[in-house]
Amino acid sequence: MSNSYTPEEPIAAIATALAPSALALIRISGKNCIELLSKVFSRPKALTQAEGNTIVYGWIVDSVNPDQKQKIDEVLVSVFRAPKSYTGEEMAEISCHGGISPVTAIFSLLLKNGFRTALPGEFTFRAFINGKTDLTKSEAVKEIIDSKTDASRSLAAGRLSGNLYNEIQSIKEKIISTIASIEVELEYPEDEENFSDSFDSTLLLQAKNSLTELSKSWQSQKLYQDGARIILCGKTNAGKSSLFNALLKEERAIVSDIEGTTRDWIESWVSFDGIPARLFDTAGLRITDDVIEQRGVEMTKDLTQDADIIIYLVDSTKEESKDDIDFINSFNGKIPVIKVLNKIDVLQNNSKLDENSVKISAKTGLGISDLIKTVKGTLVQSTKSDRTQAGLGSERQKQAVDEALDSVNHALEVSCADFTMDAVVQDLEDALSFLSEITGETTPEDILGNIFANFCVGK
Amino acid sequence: MSNSYTPEEPIAAIATALAPSALALIRISGKNCIELLSKVFSRPKALTQAEGNTIVYGWIVDSVNPDQKQKIDEVLVSVFRAPKSYTGEEMAEISCHGGISPVTAIFSLLLKNGFRTALPGEFTFRAFINGKTDLTKSEAVKEIIDSKTDASRSLAAGRLSGNLYNEIQSIKEKIISTIASIEVELEYPEDEENFSDSFDSTLLLQAKNSLTELSKSWQSQKLYQDGARIILCGKTNAGKSSLFNALLKEERAIVSDIEGTTRDWIESWVSFDGIPARLFDTAGLRITDDVIEQRGVEMTKDLTQDADIIIYLVDSTKEESKDDIDFINSFNGKIPVIKVLNKIDVLQNNSKLDENSVKISAKTGLGISDLIKTVKGTLVQSTKSDRTQAGLGSERQKQAVDEALDSVNHALEVSCADFTMDAVVQDLEDALSFLSEITGETTPEDILGNIFANFCVGK
Repeated sequence: MSNSYTPEEPIAAIATALAPSALALIRISGKNCIELLSKVFSRPKALTQAEGNTIVYGWIVDSVNPDQKQKIDEVLVSVFRAPKSYTGEEMAEISCHGGISPVTAIFSLLLKNGFRTALPGEFTFRAFINGKTDLTKSEAVKEIIDSKTDASRSLAAGRLSGNLYNEIQSIKEKIISTIASIEVELEYPEDEENFSDSFDSTLLLQAKNSLTELSKSWQSQKLYQDGARIILCGKTNAGKSSLFNALLKEERAIVSDIEGTTRDWIESWVSFDGIPARLFDTAGLRITDDVIEQRGVEMTKDLTQDADIIIYLVDSTKEESKDDIDFINSFNGKIPVIKVLNKIDVLQNNSKLDENSVKISAKTGLGISDLIKTVKGTLVQSTKSDRTQAGLGSERQKQAVDEALDSVNHALEVSCADFTMDAVVQDLEDALSFLSEITGETTPEDILGNIFANFCVGK
Repeated sequence: MSNSYTPEEPIAAIATALAPSALALIRISGKNCIELLSKVFSRPKALTQAEGNTIVYGWIVDSVNPDQKQKIDEVLVSVFRAPKSYTGEEMAEISCHGGISPVTAIFSLLLKNGFRTALPGEFTFRAFINGKTDLTKSEAVKEIIDSKTDASRSLAAGRLSGNLYNEIQSIKEKIISTIASIEVELEYPEDEENFSDSFDSTLLLQAKNSLTELSKSWQSQKLYQDGARIILCGKTNAGKSSLFNALLKEERAIVSDIEGTTRDWIESWVSFDGIPARLFDTAGLRITDDVIEQRGVEMTKDLTQDADIIIYLVDSTKEESKDDIDFINSFNGKIPVIKVLNKIDVLQNNSKLDENSVKISAKTGLGISDLIKTVKGTLVQSTKSDRTQAGLGSERQKQAVDEALDSVNHALEVSCADFTMDAVVQDLEDALSFLSEITGETTPEDILGNIFANFCVGK
């Protein structure tokens, strides 16, 4: 880690997507990087004398042969002076024309003139080691870039602005106060009564509750990040494709259809009230009136084995068949199946309809928003969805919170069981250490390396 | 035109490619656009008071409900004050995280808060009408973005830095001087000798030469821009695929394989010493030892009909067959065919080889650079390739130059033929008018509209 991510070394990265566009950004950071950039800049003096947070106009020029300076592109350079920059080092951002040729030409020129290609996440890593950010905020940067819906971005923005960091600090303070009061007790024991009687667990119980809440938050946060797999099943003519289209229309599709190899089903990203979902229309799942064909069964198996939810669509104008019941029962509670009755707009008599089913008309849009609510409710299973509240942003954070929670729980048990106070202090110090891993104060180097290696280049 | 491209109106555009990346830029321009942006900015005062060419840090916030400001993303805003900006208007560039969600969320927020989506090329159009650029430089911006090789970008960079503009101005000055001297002659005729005798055509002949050079430059400039279509043909086992791969390795492939529907041939962008070329490996062109199959013939026809060059590969270790000769002759000089003898590395006796063919070994790389030179020479057919010299950048410029050249030629003829001097002046004024169209001084509105409509949004 410390070998590969060498701070202060001049690094460069193409920070925008490399595709024809109006503008593109190339980012540089490191000691004297602006001096280095000025060697390939038409107005070197203007650049080296520029104050922080100002913009300098000029041309990037290839001056290998000083008599024959070749103009590469007309650019604006944003100058940042240490420590007032993203990385905390001297930095610049070159805004050039967004073609593949100018961007790669400028980038190659930088590499020839003393810069090296930045590693994934290296800018943010430098920001972290220079104290410009903590680990929760660093991870939130990656989350924002990867976010698929406004809701997931909004949750990440909360972490980027420090709500998780503040929550962790607040929990740590409660634990530190508890340790302090135990230590006072150890030095100046007021009376001879048992430790368990004198021990004030108020702050520790608050810390426990906060940690429990944080730990719980991961289930839904993870859904907002990674999205859910939702499979649309049902017999031919139940109206699956109409429902698929209705859901796409109702909730703004996030990105275009997922790329991949040819498949026998249709798949698209849909936002279920902020939760990104890969919705699969099993056009290939052929359930005939007589028997579920062998191939259909196989494909259902393949598709549904990782499903978070199955939406099973039934034509409400027809008699419910044994096939339908068999299909739903085949999941045997392992995967939630939402039974949806379609075509209620043309239904003559709806008195016989299953009370527990969602009733819709894919054609008219009736009931679609109810279905979206039911899907979201089944996925999140939590009444709270307060986006201003701190939640966890990664599996790593969840593990550390759970370990801190275990330590706090153990401390509470030990404190009741008349163990020595030292044992309680040891547990609480363990908890503090786990919490400091989340924010990055005590995170081991290999874990740090893993975190930043998953970033994109240029961030 | 004037209805759609309304100057000063606040416009916004996503200026970078919309794909997950470290950073993205959203660009705004128009009267009071920074005041408008400050409504959705966490530090409105810092923004509105910022001087030109400075950078302001803050958050984009959705403040529809002032009590519940929702943070969208942490950004840097580059502030530009009129007239010192790209468009000449007040401008700003928002550098946000490069995810699809933050970019689209910020952009939607701007549209809700008084901005409208910029039309293609609208920023550059505003720069043009505000006198920040002329048409040749505007067109060069688009060229740079679209350029496929360093050479094409370099030619466009020359135009962006004004070499074509300066060349046109220099030609115009020669014509204006000529007109002025004719007008002096008209007012103060020195003697009674014929106009044709007194007329000094020196400057006009220089202008004619310059225009001729410019007009000629378009053939190669166009090739640098659009690229050439090069088809690789030959019998099975002649080594087409090896040559295809060798060419790809030799000259850096520009972009990955061209996207499209499934085809029976392989196609890739290759740079032939700076000239971008779509190279087609006709894997599907099946020429058997006996007869060219019907389907092969059809595909060759389809592929070769728009070809700029056909590379016909022959296995030099085998006897040349009638098929080979027939194939080459079938193009009958309509499309240049470069005959290439492959496998010379294993050839025992090369005394019998065709003198006029290029000799290579696709396997060892021998002769590949000769082949590249031959292809380039056949394409450009010009000894000069001075990139610092002004050349034309568009069909439109070529037309105007040709029309100006016609007018100058006509003026020269008329001046020799004892017509009135007024007729010469009329021709020269026509020439000036055509030249002013190139730089944009007299370009009709509909042509202007066409030029900018072909730009990408955000430029």
